[in-house]
Amino acid sequence: MGKRVAVVLAGCGVFDGSEIHEASAALVHLSRGGAEVKIFAPNIEQRDVVNHLKGSPAEEKRNVLVESARLARGNIQDLAELKASEFDAVIFPGGFGVAKNLCSWAVDGKDCTVNEHVNSTLQAFHSAKKPIGLCCISPVLAAKVFPGCEVTVGQDKNVDGRFPDAETASAIAELGCKHVCKNVNESHVDKANKIVTTCAFMCKAPLHEIFDGIGTMVQEVLKLA
Amino acid sequence: MGKRVAVVLAGCGVFDGSEIHEASAALVHLSRGGAEVKIFAPNIEQRDVVNHLKGSPAEEKRNVLVESARLARGNIQDLAELKASEFDAVIFPGGFGVAKNLCSWAVDGKDCTVNEHVNSTLQAFHSAKKPIGLCCISPVLAAKVFPGCEVTVGQDKNVDGRFPDAETASAIAELGCKHVCKNVNESHVDKANKIVTTCAFMCKAPLHEIFDGIGTMVQEVLKLA
Repeated sequence: MGKRVAVVLAGCGVFDGSEIHEASAALVHLSRGGAEVKIFAPNIEQRDVVNHLKGSPAEEKRNVLVESARLARGNIQDLAELKASEFDAVIFPGGFGVAKNLCSWAVDGKDCTVNEHVNSTLQAFHSAKKPIGLCCISPVLAAKVFPGCEVTVGQDKNVDGRFPDAETASAIAELGCKHVCKNVNESHVDKANKIVTTCAFMCKAPLHEIFDGIGTMVQEVLKLA
Repeated sequence: MGKRVAVVLAGCGVFDGSEIHEASAALVHLSRGGAEVKIFAPNIEQRDVVNHLKGSPAEEKRNVLVESARLARGNIQDLAELKASEFDAVIFPGGFGVAKNLCSWAVDGKDCTVNEHVNSTLQAFHSAKKPIGLCCISPVLAAKVFPGCEVTVGQDKNVDGRFPDAETASAIAELGCKHVCKNVNESHVDKANKIVTTCAFMCKAPLHEIFDGIGTMVQEVLKLA
């Protein structure tokens, strides 16, 4: 039987929700790995709605669960209903929606608060020693909830201009965690905490390299599950 | 130098826009193939907005170009600005948005009308003998615009319950085109018309098989370009 994996989304679109290509890549690799996937998102209003053409906020309200349902093709559940006992692992794709809707990192940085259902989900998988996979900005969730853990968001310097958000690594260190520098096609495994991370779109790289990096994350998660 | 490929979107979400995973898969395979990609969508109001959680229409208006920008991470242009002379090929991912926003197939079937910019784009690439790639329901665009062409939307019977929309094949035949039965991991090449099609989500299949099928379509398009 395939590993049972929960995927947690934060909306649908890089600037106010889950990064679409990261979420899709995770689902493709999970499918190839024979996993049984269920998709979840919190049933809350988005922090904002961004017009992705203009890159500016729109005068609109959207719901994280309803918009995430676009990525899930309708097959999605309220995160409040997720029972860690029914799964072998959990994966959080990235996107600004993670830093806006799943926690308040986009506004508060390392002093952020984490959505209660996201927090309880992370705690439940961690205490059951079940693996947690995160990519892009999502590793800040682990850094905030599990001080002392090891994660990567890519490089801690803006190497070749490819890591414009490299200061995220410092913020992670300030939370008492260890940031491990990795390339876009690699993931880091914190074996003690069973946390697997990859930088994805934190690196300016061709889409297929981001896709492959997420593949290594998914494969490590499935191995640990 | 990589092949220059235009990708035309129809929104963002399977029920009222482009099928997200098909669009992402096409972009991943184009990236791996070294293509230089630009993304376009018509600057028009969506035919409808579907709440993807409930599967029912929402009392909202959204713009096809603005929503497609979510898939394009903001890097997108109005389809009216697409010049076929600047590209070697064009690809149309699927999703109900193709049958709602790019043409009226969802309402009118084979008697549908095709959006003027979609029509002129298809005509321009075809008359310049540049390849056109389509997947899922998008092959109906070719069937409507190029009578006599060959396309696949999978099987013409609902084999094993995996092809619930198999009657689309009959409608394509009624338009004077040849429907060629293919599996989800295959594509069909109409060499005379340089039209490459694959069924994608017209088949109920695991996501990675759909991903791989779209890969064959993209590879054939790049070969012909």
